[in-house]
Amino acid sequence: MPPRSPLAPADFPALPVIGGARFAIAEAGVRYKGRPDVMLALLDPGSVVAGVFTRSATRSANVLDCQSKIGADSAEGAAIIVNSGNSNAFTGKAGEGSVAAICQAVAAQTGLPASRVFTSSTGVIGERLPHDRITAKLDELHGALSPDGMAEAARAIMTTDTFPKAATAEIDVDGKPVRIAGIAKGSGMIAPDMATMLVYIFTDARIPRAELQALVSELNAKTFNNITVDSDTSTSDTLLMAATGASGVDVTWNADFTQALYNVMLNLAHQVVRDGEGATKFVTVHVSGAASDADARTHALAIANSPLVKTALAGEDPNWGRIVMAVGKSGAAADRDKLSIRFGETLVASEGWVAESYREEDGATYFKGQEIDINVDIGLGAGQATVWTCDLTHGYIQINADYRS
Amino acid sequence: MPPRSPLAPADFPALPVIGGARFAIAEAGVRYKGRPDVMLALLDPGSVVAGVFTRSATRSANVLDCQSKIGADSAEGAAIIVNSGNSNAFTGKAGEGSVAAICQAVAAQTGLPASRVFTSSTGVIGERLPHDRITAKLDELHGALSPDGMAEAARAIMTTDTFPKAATAEIDVDGKPVRIAGIAKGSGMIAPDMATMLVYIFTDARIPRAELQALVSELNAKTFNNITVDSDTSTSDTLLMAATGASGVDVTWNADFTQALYNVMLNLAHQVVRDGEGATKFVTVHVSGAASDADARTHALAIANSPLVKTALAGEDPNWGRIVMAVGKSGAAADRDKLSIRFGETLVASEGWVAESYREEDGATYFKGQEIDINVDIGLGAGQATVWTCDLTHGYIQINADYRS
Repeated sequence: MPPRSPLAPADFPALPVIGGARFAIAEAGVRYKGRPDVMLALLDPGSVVAGVFTRSATRSANVLDCQSKIGADSAEGAAIIVNSGNSNAFTGKAGEGSVAAICQAVAAQTGLPASRVFTSSTGVIGERLPHDRITAKLDELHGALSPDGMAEAARAIMTTDTFPKAATAEIDVDGKPVRIAGIAKGSGMIAPDMATMLVYIFTDARIPRAELQALVSELNAKTFNNITVDSDTSTSDTLLMAATGASGVDVTWNADFTQALYNVMLNLAHQVVRDGEGATKFVTVHVSGAASDADARTHALAIANSPLVKTALAGEDPNWGRIVMAVGKSGAAADRDKLSIRFGETLVASEGWVAESYREEDGATYFKGQEIDINVDIGLGAGQATVWTCDLTHGYIQINADYRS
Repeated sequence: MPPRSPLAPADFPALPVIGGARFAIAEAGVRYKGRPDVMLALLDPGSVVAGVFTRSATRSANVLDCQSKIGADSAEGAAIIVNSGNSNAFTGKAGEGSVAAICQAVAAQTGLPASRVFTSSTGVIGERLPHDRITAKLDELHGALSPDGMAEAARAIMTTDTFPKAATAEIDVDGKPVRIAGIAKGSGMIAPDMATMLVYIFTDARIPRAELQALVSELNAKTFNNITVDSDTSTSDTLLMAATGASGVDVTWNADFTQALYNVMLNLAHQVVRDGEGATKFVTVHVSGAASDADARTHALAIANSPLVKTALAGEDPNWGRIVMAVGKSGAAADRDKLSIRFGETLVASEGWVAESYREEDGATYFKGQEIDINVDIGLGAGQATVWTCDLTHGYIQINADYRS
């Protein structure tokens, strides 16, 4: 196990009970030994479920199964079951069989229809999922379900993560509390779309399924879809969100709820970057002045994914020439002489050259920090975008040149 | 200096004299001390010059100047002057002034019009080019011009290269020899379009300028545009080719000449990959069965640029799941269940899963080799493409986390 990321948050948050949602974990031994590797979440009748998924053309059997189920309304509750250690991706017909077997077993255990069972698998690609090890634990899992189990669930879904990830928020609507809590895992193979890898968010709010789906899709585009660790997109990326309605508070079109959910999603997305494999810097790339928001995002991702920019960050070298290079190669509109670059607040380059006021020592000092803001103004229009990433270090090579051995 | 790449060719080739072309080098001290850093090539009257260049939106003043000159016919000969150590990119108006000063000085020295002087600069981005150090050496350079100077020129243009790069070919046309010889530099910041970084090719063939340009553009698309080290595109990429006509042999539409030039360009392109920063594996990614050639190239580049594929190669881990991932994320059409993957001749995966005949030990043994062929059939159509790349190692991080310090 690599050591805990230096960018990890100081503490794991205290997670509230979400009425209508219960959690359990088990050690199924899918791949890892001596640690939990399966989590089950059971949602009471009346819960609605929304989701967003990877758009990879080689996505896993689990993702395809979730996508086939996610748009349906139901009053019957739902279950989410997740294993770590094996992604069940590129496992052919056997992979589809594993998903069906798990769904049927969970349905039999819980009394839910199989159409209300959502599965995720995360870990190595291309090895058959020993799903019987998971189904053998269902009785134990079902018996252990608890409203307090979400924190443990955050550990059970980890793969190369060096810390469990959770975030929470509470709002007040006419004197009544509404709670949101979510967990995530992800560390490598992180890139849009979408860069989660796995995220599960729960709220006791009441909201119609279609409105929840619209909200999650919109906020996903502003959070998980704007993080990148290594430009590699997972075959398993899944975000599921369940609203149990247990608070009795309807949050449809409630701006406070939207903001609170955005905060939870952004917090989780940032934690995934903070656990980027080998990461030592948390980097915010903000591009403004592009011809369009889409162009701004193209530039920002080109900067964030550039190995030369990422290694300059690792080396604490304020090599702004590499940022110019990345903007130039992105394919989006740019004009060398209208570009300006700032490190934090410090103007580094403008009008096609280094700024007269810029002193290399200031850049070098800034790059020694753990949190780096790269601000680029393209000087052409009003388009903007923000992308979050990390540096590319020896740690990334170590983790990934050895991963499966 | 990093040590000579383990993938370097055993020998530097013996370069022929190209009638009508002379070369000289000098130590101008642009950035490096105690080594040659400027080369001058002088081409006799009657020579034609063609070129292809980076499409970066932030390309250097030199590239813009070359592009403005490259399409013109002239009977007056030409000069090519190249410095290493400073790329004169993103140096604003001063950069344009440096190019003009060098062109005027070379024109004055050689008697050529400035419109026939082509310049390249390669090295650090964003620092003012001390062009007076170069122009101060013109008298010395002009006096030293020699038909035998091309091999030395290959050394003068190196930056982070660990070996000088040259290739040559000779064909026979109706009993008369026609010679081609080229030199290149490039090691990092290598990606289409175009991934040279700097290439200069000379022939004593006779061919009209427009036909030479068409030939160079076509062959560039099959060679330099299909290599990638790190997906980062230089602001300075330049390929210039001069045909002096000194052999007296017209090669317009000559298939042997086309093949010979292709061989020289492919050889040089491969040498750039073999000198990829930190490279320990030379990797050929061949994609067939795609919906179109363009789709095949998209898939091949997604595989070749994937940090997870490249680190698996570095770790000699035959992790074919990461190849599936890269195909899935590329954006080009793919169907999980129609995909097949071979390592060399060995079938690894097909019909959406690992092949029954595949043994992990065979893949592991194959990945221990220095030359790796990854063959992917998409199973959808007749489109194909080949891309050459290298692995991503600790060496790359070392070189690039320190480059400018």
